[in-house]
Amino acid sequence: MAGKPARSTGGRFVIEAEEVKAMAKEAGVSAVRDLLPLLVPDAKRLARPPISHYHVAAVGLGARGRIYVGVNLEFPGLPLNHSVHAEQFLVANAAAHGESSILCFAVSSFPCGHCRQFLQEIRGAEEIEILVTADADPAFRPLASLLPHHFGPYDLLHKGAPRLLEPHHNELGAVEAAKDNGTAGERLERRLREAAEGAARASHAPYSGCPSGLAVADGRGRVYAGSYVESAAYNPSLGPVQAAMIACLAVGGGEGESESGEYWDVAEAVLVEKEAAAVSQEATARIFLEAVAPSAHLKVYRFRSSAIV
Amino acid sequence: MAGKPARSTGGRFVIEAEEVKAMAKEAGVSAVRDLLPLLVPDAKRLARPPISHYHVAAVGLGARGRIYVGVNLEFPGLPLNHSVHAEQFLVANAAAHGESSILCFAVSSFPCGHCRQFLQEIRGAEEIEILVTADADPAFRPLASLLPHHFGPYDLLHKGAPRLLEPHHNELGAVEAAKDNGTAGERLERRLREAAEGAARASHAPYSGCPSGLAVADGRGRVYAGSYVESAAYNPSLGPVQAAMIACLAVGGGEGESESGEYWDVAEAVLVEKEAAAVSQEATARIFLEAVAPSAHLKVYRFRSSAIV
Ligand SMILES: [Zn+2]
Ligand SMILES: [Zn+2]
Repeated sequence: MAGKPARSTGGRFVIEAEEVKAMAKEAGVSAVRDLLPLLVPDAKRLARPPISHYHVAAVGLGARGRIYVGVNLEFPGLPLNHSVHAEQFLVANAAAHGESSILCFAVSSFPCGHCRQFLQEIRGAEEIEILVTADADPAFRPLASLLPHHFGPYDLLHKGAPRLLEPHHNELGAVEAAKDNGTAGERLERRLREAAEGAARASHAPYSGCPSGLAVADGRGRVYAGSYVESAAYNPSLGPVQAAMIACLAVGGGEGESESGEYWDVAEAVLVEKEAAAVSQEATARIFLEAVAPSAHLKVYRFRSSAIV
Repeated sequence: MAGKPARSTGGRFVIEAEEVKAMAKEAGVSAVRDLLPLLVPDAKRLARPPISHYHVAAVGLGARGRIYVGVNLEFPGLPLNHSVHAEQFLVANAAAHGESSILCFAVSSFPCGHCRQFLQEIRGAEEIEILVTADADPAFRPLASLLPHHFGPYDLLHKGAPRLLEPHHNELGAVEAAKDNGTAGERLERRLREAAEGAARASHAPYSGCPSGLAVADGRGRVYAGSYVESAAYNPSLGPVQAAMIACLAVGGGEGESESGEYWDVAEAVLVEKEAAAVSQEATARIFLEAVAPSAHLKVYRFRSSAIV
């Protein structure tokens, strides 16, 4: 038998701090962060890139010792800017779990410029330590060395404005919703609406002022929600529908998804956004679902303008 | 009177080499590239950023001495990944004019990570010299210094594959189209279809193999076409509808566009793409036009699969 036994997160996207410590001990690494690159090769199989067939995994360490996994997702039939990169998945996964910071991560290939920009939304981004397992000389190096002369939230927001992974409580007023009569369908819709509202309140959208959230229910009635994440550079922003797909996998495990990664197990979806928003996600969420979950039904609720602060 | 007279391209997005030489002489600069930063401040007024109100201009020099201008564009009502950055505009403008290379450019603020990635599609990208006018110490520095350890076409394509700004002749077979009877509307549609076909053949889409082109006619029957441009990192790709808007401004001057930048003068549009494409632009082009040119009519033609090589 050649080599050490394979390291694995067992298909999970989050590992609690206790287990992380035990895994590090078992792997014989002196610092927990040295466990991260060992988990990358196996995590790559969790990626869903049906267009490129190019698997990428990023495995990161949160401030309180948790490990978060991110992989790349691609969605056939749509323009490529709907894709989710492993680094974005990692950060959105951490955000969905209330993580306060990412200290470091290991990733299978050098982050692209789009991801280097997206990561700037985290406070202290320049100090996030990144190790690339495909590097000829793999070592943890600060993000600042990959994006010198950066542009980001520090150029546009006041210092106290919450950054990504810091608590957001967007004050958005109430959502206009009809009274329900307690049927199963109405109960599911209310659960979806409440989950999407919560995601919208937690959304990082300081540049446009148009937070949004999207919740989906799979065929078994399990609900997953994703918050829209904005980038100071606009284009690298992560849509709420992509964030919800990340939650499907990261929280739910995605057992209902097709092996090919082409179709997703989404039966119902609810988007919550502002009325007459300068940045509206509705039309895009609709064409996204038509491509990846053709039988899904999307309902849109809007925060009443009068209640917006 | 303080300072030198303002330098200007007079609202134009392309300046021919002869005039560039004369302008450099008049400005008293020893090298033509030193003219570029002088043109940036005035070019910023050509930007159309109705969401951020943050104007960016990039002014670049082509291999044969032409100057190309790029500005940022934003489209209200849509997700922010529909935005066009000044550097992308500059490159798509050069491509639409058959330019073979960009030697250097001056830009008003540091390029974001998304643009640093997009620029990798040009052969020899690492040597493109960039000057940032907002820099404390403005000087031309190679792109390689802004995106170390880059990822790009060199990692995915064979050496001889055409890069962006090199001639592309995508072999796409014929488009299925009904015979026209020579009415004015049919003649316009044929012109649009032929322009969109040409743009699709020139499209840079080596990663997905799904080239596309989109042509628009303004209210005066003038036709502008844009080619889809793909990025090795997927998300920074430039859609064909964005490329067509760039052509509207760069070739047509955009006199018909609203001052606020919210609505565009598009009456008719034709998209040409592959049948059953893994990367399809149709649904996105449709929601884009609904947001920025609500009265525009979009027709889609497809290259027959049987004819695709
Ligand atoms: Zn990336
Ligand atoms: Zn940019």
